[in-house]
Amino acid sequence: MKIAIAQLNYQVGNLDFNTQKIINAILTAKSQAVDLIIFSELSICGYIPYDFLKYDYFIENCYQKLDEIKSHCVDIAAIVGLATKNPQTKGKKLYNSAAFIFNGEVQKLIHKSLIPSFDVFNEERYFEKNKNLEIIEFKNKKIVISIAEDLWDEHRICGVFEHKIMFKNNPMEYLSKFSPDLIINIAAQPFSYCQIDNKKEIIFKNAIKYSIPIIYVNQVGGNAELIYEGASIIVNKAGNPVLVADSFKEDFHVFNIDEIVKSPKTININKVLKSNKYETLYSAIILGIKDFFEKNNFKKAIVGLSGGLDSAVVVALLVNALKKENVEVLLLPTKYSSQHSIDDSLEMIKRCGIKHHIIDIEELRLAYSSSMQEVFENTKPDLTEENIQARIRGSILMAYSNKFGNILINTSNKSEVAVGYSTMYGDMNGALSIIGDLYKTEVYKLADYINQNFNNMIPQNIIEKIPSAELRPNQKDSDSLPDYEILDEILFLYIEQNLSEEEIINRGLPKDTVSRIIKLVNNSEFKRFQMPPVLKLSSKSFGEGRKMPL
Amino acid sequence: MKIAIAQLNYQVGNLDFNTQKIINAILTAKSQAVDLIIFSELSICGYIPYDFLKYDYFIENCYQKLDEIKSHCVDIAAIVGLATKNPQTKGKKLYNSAAFIFNGEVQKLIHKSLIPSFDVFNEERYFEKNKNLEIIEFKNKKIVISIAEDLWDEHRICGVFEHKIMFKNNPMEYLSKFSPDLIINIAAQPFSYCQIDNKKEIIFKNAIKYSIPIIYVNQVGGNAELIYEGASIIVNKAGNPVLVADSFKEDFHVFNIDEIVKSPKTININKVLKSNKYETLYSAIILGIKDFFEKNNFKKAIVGLSGGLDSAVVVALLVNALKKENVEVLLLPTKYSSQHSIDDSLEMIKRCGIKHHIIDIEELRLAYSSSMQEVFENTKPDLTEENIQARIRGSILMAYSNKFGNILINTSNKSEVAVGYSTMYGDMNGALSIIGDLYKTEVYKLADYINQNFNNMIPQNIIEKIPSAELRPNQKDSDSLPDYEILDEILFLYIEQNLSEEEIINRGLPKDTVSRIIKLVNNSEFKRFQMPPVLKLSSKSFGEGRKMPL
Repeated sequence: MKIAIAQLNYQVGNLDFNTQKIINAILTAKSQAVDLIIFSELSICGYIPYDFLKYDYFIENCYQKLDEIKSHCVDIAAIVGLATKNPQTKGKKLYNSAAFIFNGEVQKLIHKSLIPSFDVFNEERYFEKNKNLEIIEFKNKKIVISIAEDLWDEHRICGVFEHKIMFKNNPMEYLSKFSPDLIINIAAQPFSYCQIDNKKEIIFKNAIKYSIPIIYVNQVGGNAELIYEGASIIVNKAGNPVLVADSFKEDFHVFNIDEIVKSPKTININKVLKSNKYETLYSAIILGIKDFFEKNNFKKAIVGLSGGLDSAVVVALLVNALKKENVEVLLLPTKYSSQHSIDDSLEMIKRCGIKHHIIDIEELRLAYSSSMQEVFENTKPDLTEENIQARIRGSILMAYSNKFGNILINTSNKSEVAVGYSTMYGDMNGALSIIGDLYKTEVYKLADYINQNFNNMIPQNIIEKIPSAELRPNQKDSDSLPDYEILDEILFLYIEQNLSEEEIINRGLPKDTVSRIIKLVNNSEFKRFQMPPVLKLSSKSFGEGRKMPL
Repeated sequence: MKIAIAQLNYQVGNLDFNTQKIINAILTAKSQAVDLIIFSELSICGYIPYDFLKYDYFIENCYQKLDEIKSHCVDIAAIVGLATKNPQTKGKKLYNSAAFIFNGEVQKLIHKSLIPSFDVFNEERYFEKNKNLEIIEFKNKKIVISIAEDLWDEHRICGVFEHKIMFKNNPMEYLSKFSPDLIINIAAQPFSYCQIDNKKEIIFKNAIKYSIPIIYVNQVGGNAELIYEGASIIVNKAGNPVLVADSFKEDFHVFNIDEIVKSPKTININKVLKSNKYETLYSAIILGIKDFFEKNNFKKAIVGLSGGLDSAVVVALLVNALKKENVEVLLLPTKYSSQHSIDDSLEMIKRCGIKHHIIDIEELRLAYSSSMQEVFENTKPDLTEENIQARIRGSILMAYSNKFGNILINTSNKSEVAVGYSTMYGDMNGALSIIGDLYKTEVYKLADYINQNFNNMIPQNIIEKIPSAELRPNQKDSDSLPDYEILDEILFLYIEQNLSEEEIINRGLPKDTVSRIIKLVNNSEFKRFQMPPVLKLSSKSFGEGRKMPL
């Protein structure tokens, strides 16, 4: 049996666009005499249109698109993902379904059984669990069609189980009794840098456990905060990968399933999938930026370049994702800005070949001072005055964005966002945060990766200087925060690993620092509430991935 | 049997505080020879601590608090709500439980069966569904202990069913077979102005259906966006209310259950519960403000008073919630501000007796112009310049907030938030939005309600003037938007009732306007993403209540 896997980049909610993409792939597959073509989870509507799923017309439109697709599947079979109506009057209104289409008709609708509500997933808001498990038969093969979590039910965060067995049922336990010949899994699994290993392991483990080959087809592309890495895989029944699709781009493969799973040649998956953490992160961010701009019809970006590490890394990433002519920067110095910050920024601009403007904001700073003078009489300078500078910069960057249509990209990192070391409506501004899920120590390593692979885009001075917000004379980050190595370790244990203050101190970290940092994290939830969307890169990003009370 | 209901105002995550409150109520009940005291859902941790539930230490602490409470329940029984561990290795890690305590021990842990994942609820992120239904026996009575949704499974929005039967199972159908004498329901049901009627109806309907009296104990208080109205109810088996606790405040009642449910005297519930929509909304907002300040240890508020309706209503609400000495306002005029805006604001300030400052921002406006001059050369004035004014105001208000600790309260209404008629990092600033879930036409009616009941706090000029943002000469809201009556009708049908563009046009609304407004709503999702928390007042508020893709 000749099978095609179509690893495509869908637009959430753009049914016309997605359907055309699906039909094009079907036509290509037909021209190669394919028997069955497989698309990813919720392919017709893209993963996931959230509350558009609550609009009846939206679901009706999905059915109409399914009809269009059906008409192209007379002499080819296809598996496409879509939301379908639950015909029962009780329970959630929809199913998360895979339509198995052949002879121009939907032969079977298979519904997802294990509906995730963890991390960024909230599918139980929409989808009823399927309890009627069945296999399909096609070309003399018994096939399990499963949807994403149906095949796995553990949730691990960087090797540590947050949750070992998330669901009460295991549909494969039941379906394996029918001795299927093949498992197909269609998914939309968001990227995180340690998720890739988990995913591979789970697929391999299942193939071995049931001694059945698995075809896993994942969505690819960036949809606002979430990035899907693709990397669809075929493993033989010994759990060895025999085909791996590209990571971070669309891919299409045609193969004879009987031959490929018997092939003695298996793939060293670590060579195919990016095995270096920073190479993976880099590729994920680039895709996230590209798709954010493309899918929203944005063209140019604007960034405030401070001379510090974060904005430099952000600019380097934007230049590589969008091309240099689409990236512009503003330098917004005050009297507290050091000359080296300006020089280093100019050097960075030269290396990247991007357009820039320098707007001295000293006059605006003084104008605020004078406007506030009467009201602030008899008060001492404090954080207020530092925040004003950050907000002037934020306002100027937004003005540039409003005037020329450039999209403001946020430059916050996860460490500062975690402890609230940032100004709301100032440096927290932006339409998208692209390094907001990287701790400062990770930003350093990403900077090294970029410099090693892309001609030292970032001047070494910027990487080596002592971190400072330059909002008052001689300010250093370390005045108010512990060293980033210690800070990031505490944050990782508290945020990613859900350890308590006591448990973190027991790991040998300084007691007072741990207490203070945890308080800062909890007390700055109100700032994160109003943060831009953050590209999810880790297994626990702020936003949907970590919901906390205010 | 003598029963007490304790309708208390908990602090989310503050286990010490909540436990002390629970113990105090138990002591009071004991002194009145009560047999059983009933607290609301998740009373030990407050509803709902979100991902703190993922921290093991947090759950352990809940158990410790339960132990403390137990020790006070030797000669009194109590029902308290808390999260407990699911002892099984499969499935969600927790249950949403009611502990039935007597003789100093937990006699039975009853777990919630119907776990909500709709509107603002996302309990399936944490809680496993209970499948082992049982009743308890106490003082020769068979009692059903149910938790919130266990007793209802429909979701209606202002009379229209968004979802008729949300769950596949109905635990009461099963439990009614044991012929129980009494149903107890402990809940944490957030307020919305049309939810109160639904709730009453559901409780009455259940009592009649099973011919069993119901004791319903609800949480009260504001927790960030969510307000809980309390209004706990006891109905007899004929579905007639025999006791109704206060709305929007703590309440405590002791009664003999056998007598009260047999009493021939039933209550006209519409007289007890606030039956006027704006009286209800007013009370809800006041509680939301009070608790936001109290629970976060905030004292004073700051608002930018523009001379328009929204900020005037916000100030009136704050003055009534926090007292006049805790409300301060800034007038931030430019040359586009009309004299009547300043005069009307000063009149409002006089009537409220609050502190104010006037800071002319014309100089800052010019300073931005001159700073941007070179970069903006050869461009025409557009929205950019209007946004700059809004951001200057936002920055000054935040500076005031930073310097003096006053909390900035947002003044956006739901109509402008819906269509994006607002400036990010400008007038969208604030720690809390208190009228962001009220359409403009509702803000007008609330203003009338306030004036009628609180000595015309708001000058009539402010209510009657033609709405304008005053960001350019002679600007009116109606330059860019349809009349608010039409706008709000379209928005309600699209947002609350999930109708499609076509269906809304079929209701007789103007085609082009409907298309344009729906596009505006969909395209301004990115602005709402970074909005402050909005007090939920309707059955569909922005934020957790309506999740949309960007």
